[in-house]
Amino acid sequence: MRLKRYIVPFMLSVFLLSFHTQVAPEVKEDVIRDVPLSPQTQTCLACHTTYTPGIVKDWQSSRHAGMIPSEALKKSLLEKRISAESLPDELGKYAVGCYECHSLNPERHKDSFSHMGFTINVVVTPDDCKTCHPTEAKQFYGSKKSHAVKNLLGNPVYNTLVSTITGVKKVENGKILSDKPSESTLHETCLGCHGTHIESKGLKIVTTGMGEISIPDLTNWPNQGVGRENPDGSLGACSACHARHSFSIEVARKPYTCSQCHLEPDVPAWNVYHESKHGGIFFSKYQEWSLNSVPWIVGKDFKTPSCATCHNSLLVSPTGDVIVERTHDFGSRLWVRIFGLIYSHPQPKSGNTTIIKNMDGLSLPTSFTGNLASEYLIDKTDQEERLNSMKKVCNTCHSTAWINGHFSKFERTIRETDEMTLAATKLMISAWEKEIEDKSNPFDEPIEQMWARQWLFYSNSIRYASAMTGAPDYTAFKNGWWYFNENLQHMKDWIEFKKRDQEVTTK
Amino acid sequence: MRLKRYIVPFMLSVFLLSFHTQVAPEVKEDVIRDVPLSPQTQTCLACHTTYTPGIVKDWQSSRHAGMIPSEALKKSLLEKRISAESLPDELGKYAVGCYECHSLNPERHKDSFSHMGFTINVVVTPDDCKTCHPTEAKQFYGSKKSHAVKNLLGNPVYNTLVSTITGVKKVENGKILSDKPSESTLHETCLGCHGTHIESKGLKIVTTGMGEISIPDLTNWPNQGVGRENPDGSLGACSACHARHSFSIEVARKPYTCSQCHLEPDVPAWNVYHESKHGGIFFSKYQEWSLNSVPWIVGKDFKTPSCATCHNSLLVSPTGDVIVERTHDFGSRLWVRIFGLIYSHPQPKSGNTTIIKNMDGLSLPTSFTGNLASEYLIDKTDQEERLNSMKKVCNTCHSTAWINGHFSKFERTIRETDEMTLAATKLMISAWEKEIEDKSNPFDEPIEQMWARQWLFYSNSIRYASAMTGAPDYTAFKNGWWYFNENLQHMKDWIEFKKRDQEVTTK
Amino acid sequence: MRLKRYIVPFMLSVFLLSFHTQVAPEVKEDVIRDVPLSPQTQTCLACHTTYTPGIVKDWQSSRHAGMIPSEALKKSLLEKRISAESLPDELGKYAVGCYECHSLNPERHKDSFSHMGFTINVVVTPDDCKTCHPTEAKQFYGSKKSHAVKNLLGNPVYNTLVSTITGVKKVENGKILSDKPSESTLHETCLGCHGTHIESKGLKIVTTGMGEISIPDLTNWPNQGVGRENPDGSLGACSACHARHSFSIEVARKPYTCSQCHLEPDVPAWNVYHESKHGGIFFSKYQEWSLNSVPWIVGKDFKTPSCATCHNSLLVSPTGDVIVERTHDFGSRLWVRIFGLIYSHPQPKSGNTTIIKNMDGLSLPTSFTGNLASEYLIDKTDQEERLNSMKKVCNTCHSTAWINGHFSKFERTIRETDEMTLAATKLMISAWEKEIEDKSNPFDEPIEQMWARQWLFYSNSIRYASAMTGAPDYTAFKNGWWYFNENLQHMKDWIEFKKRDQEVTTK
Repeated sequence: MRLKRYIVPFMLSVFLLSFHTQVAPEVKEDVIRDVPLSPQTQTCLACHTTYTPGIVKDWQSSRHAGMIPSEALKKSLLEKRISAESLPDELGKYAVGCYECHSLNPERHKDSFSHMGFTINVVVTPDDCKTCHPTEAKQFYGSKKSHAVKNLLGNPVYNTLVSTITGVKKVENGKILSDKPSESTLHETCLGCHGTHIESKGLKIVTTGMGEISIPDLTNWPNQGVGRENPDGSLGACSACHARHSFSIEVARKPYTCSQCHLEPDVPAWNVYHESKHGGIFFSKYQEWSLNSVPWIVGKDFKTPSCATCHNSLLVSPTGDVIVERTHDFGSRLWVRIFGLIYSHPQPKSGNTTIIKNMDGLSLPTSFTGNLASEYLIDKTDQEERLNSMKKVCNTCHSTAWINGHFSKFERTIRETDEMTLAATKLMISAWEKEIEDKSNPFDEPIEQMWARQWLFYSNSIRYASAMTGAPDYTAFKNGWWYFNENLQHMKDWIEFKKRDQEVTTK
Repeated sequence: MRLKRYIVPFMLSVFLLSFHTQVAPEVKEDVIRDVPLSPQTQTCLACHTTYTPGIVKDWQSSRHAGMIPSEALKKSLLEKRISAESLPDELGKYAVGCYECHSLNPERHKDSFSHMGFTINVVVTPDDCKTCHPTEAKQFYGSKKSHAVKNLLGNPVYNTLVSTITGVKKVENGKILSDKPSESTLHETCLGCHGTHIESKGLKIVTTGMGEISIPDLTNWPNQGVGRENPDGSLGACSACHARHSFSIEVARKPYTCSQCHLEPDVPAWNVYHESKHGGIFFSKYQEWSLNSVPWIVGKDFKTPSCATCHNSLLVSPTGDVIVERTHDFGSRLWVRIFGLIYSHPQPKSGNTTIIKNMDGLSLPTSFTGNLASEYLIDKTDQEERLNSMKKVCNTCHSTAWINGHFSKFERTIRETDEMTLAATKLMISAWEKEIEDKSNPFDEPIEQMWARQWLFYSNSIRYASAMTGAPDYTAFKNGWWYFNENLQHMKDWIEFKKRDQEVTTK
Repeated sequence: MRLKRYIVPFMLSVFLLSFHTQVAPEVKEDVIRDVPLSPQTQTCLACHTTYTPGIVKDWQSSRHAGMIPSEALKKSLLEKRISAESLPDELGKYAVGCYECHSLNPERHKDSFSHMGFTINVVVTPDDCKTCHPTEAKQFYGSKKSHAVKNLLGNPVYNTLVSTITGVKKVENGKILSDKPSESTLHETCLGCHGTHIESKGLKIVTTGMGEISIPDLTNWPNQGVGRENPDGSLGACSACHARHSFSIEVARKPYTCSQCHLEPDVPAWNVYHESKHGGIFFSKYQEWSLNSVPWIVGKDFKTPSCATCHNSLLVSPTGDVIVERTHDFGSRLWVRIFGLIYSHPQPKSGNTTIIKNMDGLSLPTSFTGNLASEYLIDKTDQEERLNSMKKVCNTCHSTAWINGHFSKFERTIRETDEMTLAATKLMISAWEKEIEDKSNPFDEPIEQMWARQWLFYSNSIRYASAMTGAPDYTAFKNGWWYFNENLQHMKDWIEFKKRDQEVTTK
């Protein structure tokens, strides 16, 4: 390691002269507060202020930089942003700086390495964050999000879908052949959201502004996918939503964050929200609201919900009553899964969905013709309870009749979209029976792909729009009923064309 | 009715102790002003502060909560936001609260009911709003928007389009059969924007936080579609644009509001605006502008138009001259209807377009091959006058030569897109003549659907982009000339494929 | 010319009484500063305050209105926004007003005309702006952007693509015939972004608020396309990005500006950015940042990049070190051109790409099967150097390992997308060989159009997303691998259908 060895002590002395306690609370970055930094973090900052100033400035704008955890512990229950009851001594008295997070649990971190005299982990994981935020970590570990890699690639059906789409195609003698997808392409398509598997392959040398340094050689890195498999064996990435070094609750509450993954054509939550009444008011007025506050007071801090309002946040009434508790188990206020696989269904009991077996013997929550794998799905009582928690949120701004009207409409839409999916399934079965396409891979031929669009794109879009009472134009034309219907007609004609081809060829 | 009867007096006493005159003007919600509330509204608030705090807080941020109508009457003509010359005594002296709006004209309201000792209407309608805003209501009633439900469902051609798209499809013996669309699906597709028909079917009991209460049982509720048919017999919903209980002029002037309905692929006003120079500057700078001001001063209050600037708002020059008057008849500055049905045409004379008969005997403004139903459309003089009112708006920031150049380009585009529609119509006629598809329903088979895309999606998109001189990339590729051309080529090939199918089958 | 001749002196006297030195710096428009205006500009404002108040107000909010160029010259090198070393005397002492820009170099301006006693140019061009901003003009003239009209229409292949898409189609005897595209349609599609050719055809009389006046009769005007061919012989329009009369650096730095041209489906930079982590944080937080500052300090003035950060702006570290210099040659930090023509390739050496000849003899940087026209493209050393300048930007917030991981993923994606394009090319060649479609125009038949989608829409989209590590859902489904694969399958089936048609017809 040909590191310029003089650099660390030099940077540190420059730093200590110029950079004392310049940490500040979220948003008002320029306010200087007297929050002590640990000696280790001071050493980190000494160099990184020069070498990665953006990271340092980002952290300086964070709440982590602006308070001491032991003070945070003293806040009232509703105001608390940490859930630990007590903290390790060494974490109690300094701001939460570089070293406080990047040095935790080194014995479990295969990405741990010796860096400028310190033992540092490259990747900070939910297991590290849970030192101060154990409740959030526990909830998250129970959710589908934390199992997002395995739920996708460990399921033979989804794995086939993924491979069929993302494998490079070659044309040889008029035939289309498919390679296996590369890790690289998986990384920036499906696993961009779901998360990659990060492993340490030892050390490697990189050339930096400080000379050559030795760092862990990690596979599939960088990645902040929500279900990332970490080198300490834990699952998930808090930074998927609490982006980068400001760890902002405000950013996580804004719909821009969720929009990075929940998008048309398959999961158009963002698109539907943007066109909904809720979204329209949000984008018109949110600059005047307080998206940072804990507790988050309905009507006072915001006047229309963002994604987090309905799905995650602790909500409190203007008179201080808790409406719903905070949750990082993202399905816990959801009774039905409108992301059809291939039909809508009650939410699965476990965040690990690879354990499901339907009547066709596949790890899918519904069978090919729509029968539920009920054993693995929550029952009516649980559904009722979760629906009621959601209704409490609605009820802060809407009357009971309004809410009931909304949800009975939604229920009907779920049924109709499932029927439309079934119609497409029947057409595809007939194409398979006539050997027009080959059922061994249900995603690799045109009629099959039209079938997949029907449930993956159009049914889902209509259900998301119905759920948010938003985007009627989206539901009517853009990715909704227009295509639902047109695509079905195309399936029918395409089957005819291929059947005729078959007949002419065999004549 | 098993209402917890003690609740109202109790809530009221709690309320009267804690909640005096906490009303405030738009935006600066925390400023407390001494605006008296009626005793009835105080009673409403006593409970609703607890049961629907979001509604109360939203209203508190409104201008309605922050002023007394009799004071509003004294404002200068340009500053006035109400158009009534005088007001009923009981409305003059209190802020415009819950009771002031929800108690009007109960004799006409079939949704009127007895609620905690008061007679309350669930739905507030334009006929109620016109108590203070008669000019706006009158203009609105003359517009196509107020007839939006009938204009859609009362027209046999559009009705066929709607039913064909939104009816659930079933596959039986390889055939696709269509159900009639459900009220529920209409409600969240076409009628989401156009509005539903709301009728009262008597009373029903619902369980609320206050126990069981009896409320009107309304069909198709909730809905804020702009042409909603109300239980007092009136048409429309002011809340379609002046959303919820803040009734904000700012929200209505922001393009997010219009974007809820005017969207790709059929009416891509939002999409085109977002990509236009006007839109680019708006989204970059509007946080520094005043979107609340009345009168709205060009250059001072805003520097680039939003939808409302060109189509609706009263605009005043920095020296106080009126440029254009406010209007709630949304077509009144429009000379040509670029939403083709099926070709572009002069704006219809009446907001009720079901009265139109074209030369084919249908309620369409143009015939199948493009002849105008001129008797029902405005003439050249009216067109000229409306174009001139629009040019006055442009002229505040653009020179005469600039404006003339723009509109002559626009005119040419209208002609070309109509020619492109005609090309598709000719292909479809040939398909019908050869009995490749069946003309009885012009929307239910693939070639017909390609034809509909041509005028409903691509012609419209190109015209909207031309009108706003925006979105050249949109017009070239995304929903514009690329698809215009590709789709026409597909029609031709598809006709060939089906003709061959026909021949092979009949051999 | 029946001009109301009394108007100018009258307006001027009104103006001089009411409007003294009301110029103000960017953003804080209401602050009045004592910046003197030239007598000529005062005369312009006297009328235009009444006739085009929006332009005047927009200019008043600009830095041009708020400072004297001779003062600007005294700023430190990093703070300077002008690059001239000295200025003509007459420009040094007044604010940069109407006359200062619209009167420059009249001898070269064919759009020069006599207006109210002054010689005025309608169009202000980069050759005019370079009086104060010579470095920027020089850089811009070296870029592809300044040659955007010729690069498109002067290239036979692209010209065929443009004409095929935008010519009006007619159907006669079942055949589709295409007209040549109109100037008008070119103007609002391809040339909306690329720029039009503006020529003066003499004078014409227009009727304005001031009566009839005589003005130059310009072709293809208005237009702010970035490569506009101006009536003084120069190329380009600074107003393409520094929109209208505020000439704002803030507006140019915001992604809304770039979004007007860099859009899906062919160049989805905006769409990908919006869905990326960078974009998500930008839209969540930019209201708190300083997008106006020069120099632009990483971490302090902004915490996540906009388009300008990576591609154009002078960036400085919090300690005042220059990270990268400002550039208006928009490709100068780019090593590879991911906009495939038809495959990705090293950036061309010259901004004028019509000089390129590939091995097929065409002006394309790659041959039909992917061989590079290397002679016209930058070499490995230049590529390395440019990549390193980009890495410096990344390095302000990301570690070296992170950056290397990102770019090696990107490189792999470029290779895979080129392979996918080749697969489509092979299918199309087979269709041509079997005379299923006719190769004379490679863009006018369905299989050919599917081929064009493959490289123009899907390959490009995936590469843009990979470049920004953004939008995994976009890359997986929306315009990415899903369509990449589906479209290839459609090509194959469509070839079969047409082959069968051919066989049946010739039987």
